[in-house]
Amino acid sequence: MQITVLSGGVGGARFVRGLLLALRQRRSAAGVDGVSGGAESAPDTVTVIGNTGDDITIFGLRVCPDLDSLLYTLGGGVDEDQGWGRAADTHELMGELGALGVQPQWFGLGDKDLATHVARSLWLGQGLSLSQVTARLASRWGLPDQGVVLLPVTDTPIETHVVIGGDDGQERAIHFQEWWVKERAAVLAHRFTVAGLGQATPAPGVLEAIRGADVVVLPPSNPVVSIGIILGVPGVRDALRGARAPIIGVSPLIGGHPVRGHADACLAPLGVEVSAAGVAGLYDDFLRGWLVDDADASASYPAGVTVRHLDLLMRDLDGAARIAGAALDLAEQLR
Amino acid sequence: MQITVLSGGVGGARFVRGLLLALRQRRSAAGVDGVSGGAESAPDTVTVIGNTGDDITIFGLRVCPDLDSLLYTLGGGVDEDQGWGRAADTHELMGELGALGVQPQWFGLGDKDLATHVARSLWLGQGLSLSQVTARLASRWGLPDQGVVLLPVTDTPIETHVVIGGDDGQERAIHFQEWWVKERAAVLAHRFTVAGLGQATPAPGVLEAIRGADVVVLPPSNPVVSIGIILGVPGVRDALRGARAPIIGVSPLIGGHPVRGHADACLAPLGVEVSAAGVAGLYDDFLRGWLVDDADASASYPAGVTVRHLDLLMRDLDGAARIAGAALDLAEQLR
Repeated sequence: MQITVLSGGVGGARFVRGLLLALRQRRSAAGVDGVSGGAESAPDTVTVIGNTGDDITIFGLRVCPDLDSLLYTLGGGVDEDQGWGRAADTHELMGELGALGVQPQWFGLGDKDLATHVARSLWLGQGLSLSQVTARLASRWGLPDQGVVLLPVTDTPIETHVVIGGDDGQERAIHFQEWWVKERAAVLAHRFTVAGLGQATPAPGVLEAIRGADVVVLPPSNPVVSIGIILGVPGVRDALRGARAPIIGVSPLIGGHPVRGHADACLAPLGVEVSAAGVAGLYDDFLRGWLVDDADASASYPAGVTVRHLDLLMRDLDGAARIAGAALDLAEQLR
Repeated sequence: MQITVLSGGVGGARFVRGLLLALRQRRSAAGVDGVSGGAESAPDTVTVIGNTGDDITIFGLRVCPDLDSLLYTLGGGVDEDQGWGRAADTHELMGELGALGVQPQWFGLGDKDLATHVARSLWLGQGLSLSQVTARLASRWGLPDQGVVLLPVTDTPIETHVVIGGDDGQERAIHFQEWWVKERAAVLAHRFTVAGLGQATPAPGVLEAIRGADVVVLPPSNPVVSIGIILGVPGVRDALRGARAPIIGVSPLIGGHPVRGHADACLAPLGVEVSAAGVAGLYDDFLRGWLVDDADASASYPAGVTVRHLDLLMRDLDGAARIAGAALDLAEQLR
């Protein structure tokens, strides 16, 4: 089965890890774990299309937070408490940058994590595309062995900016990371803009992965600054509208609140209701199935979208596998 | 007193540290330690002109090994055993670069040390000159408070290459660091070339520091790949020839052997005798005084060069101060 996932960072990465477990469980239950023959034993491929709007050049190094969370989480190297960065990382380099007065200091990067950014910057500087760089990093983390292809949504550098009000009443734009990490999304966002988006083209394989999928899944990633950015890359949304596969989404909101992150602060400037139904409305031109929490079962959802409700709190890997399995089940019903 | 030193890395840095101690001891003995008045109380300034031929861009980061050894040694942050790199450094980033297959792995860079290179590369990328970057780093290490001005010999990127014989009989050039660190200078050098040297100009303050000095000192640095590179920057040698101050050198060889490093492997391709006398011959167009080890007292030295012999082994800080003091004494006699 070909499964394509449009993913942000932490939540998306944990969902994909659950999806991989769910696929293993199904293959195991079906007795096709790499030994028996037949069409059912063809390996599953999970293509993850990652958001790159969060990317930032910091200390002269190119950092791709969402791709890195995917790499580290799927590769078993993530700091599980944070959901980003490397497990048991040290912070000697950043400490010394602080002694040197290098700003910003609000973007914490561990020493192991920094190696990813040093390598990425080196390879980009040598002329490799972000896709090619990401493939190298994915190999280091064993993604191909798990049947996972990780693609940045675009090789064109794009950056999400947040327009906020300045002290002088004038609007000003700051990088998404400054708003998200430094300001913890507590400064009112007037709107989001994405530098470079108009000139961006989908990375090689992105449109093919959507068009050729047996199912397309939207994990519970931020609908505005993660999945919304992916959808904004010219060609992606059209590919989703024309996809033969059912497109199944998982609500990032439970009872009107984000499980993690600041989706509420991102939806407000769009005038979208902060609810599972509000988010579904953002996808209603291509969404076929929508998983919501039991708490949101009785809301009114867009016509043409099949809604299923379940416990949507992704407490651990098993919980993520359970939710991903429900998405696969719903796709099966809608196919 | 204005003292100007032309320095390579480890040996030069240790010598300058000894020189600073010798100056403090003299001021203390003279009772002019910052309290009494008179011309004698004017603070000493030590301008160190550092070799940049060793510089290398590695992992996309600009590394200046000699300047860094000077910064770390004079700032109290050096790994004393190595003479280069930071004390108690960790190696998480390099370890992860190894896991990513990034080459080369023969150039060991600790995490704290890497911060210097990240900051330098960032600042160079922002348009600062190497002089300006070095001044920032020098402030972090408290050099101005010690009366030390550290100048790269040139802001023009230069790189020393070593021409060696290839397996196919064809000559090929490798970066000095590859020859020095990876090959441990054990591969026969045919000759040295310095990329960019013809276009290089002395960094701001370099020629002034030579012309305005009360004494110019050549520490026991490598005469070919450290001091030789400095002398090769257009204008520097002429400034030394025209300097009003006595120029005093300290032999890097004792009994025909380098105390540290591979000066013998560097002198051979030049056809220069591997001895204190041979090195003095490289400087005889400007050298006024030459300190050699007791073991080399009876050799024949260039006419016009005043030779003093003493125990030249720089065992510790006190030893370095003793030798630096002897250089100051000789300058006093020749002034």
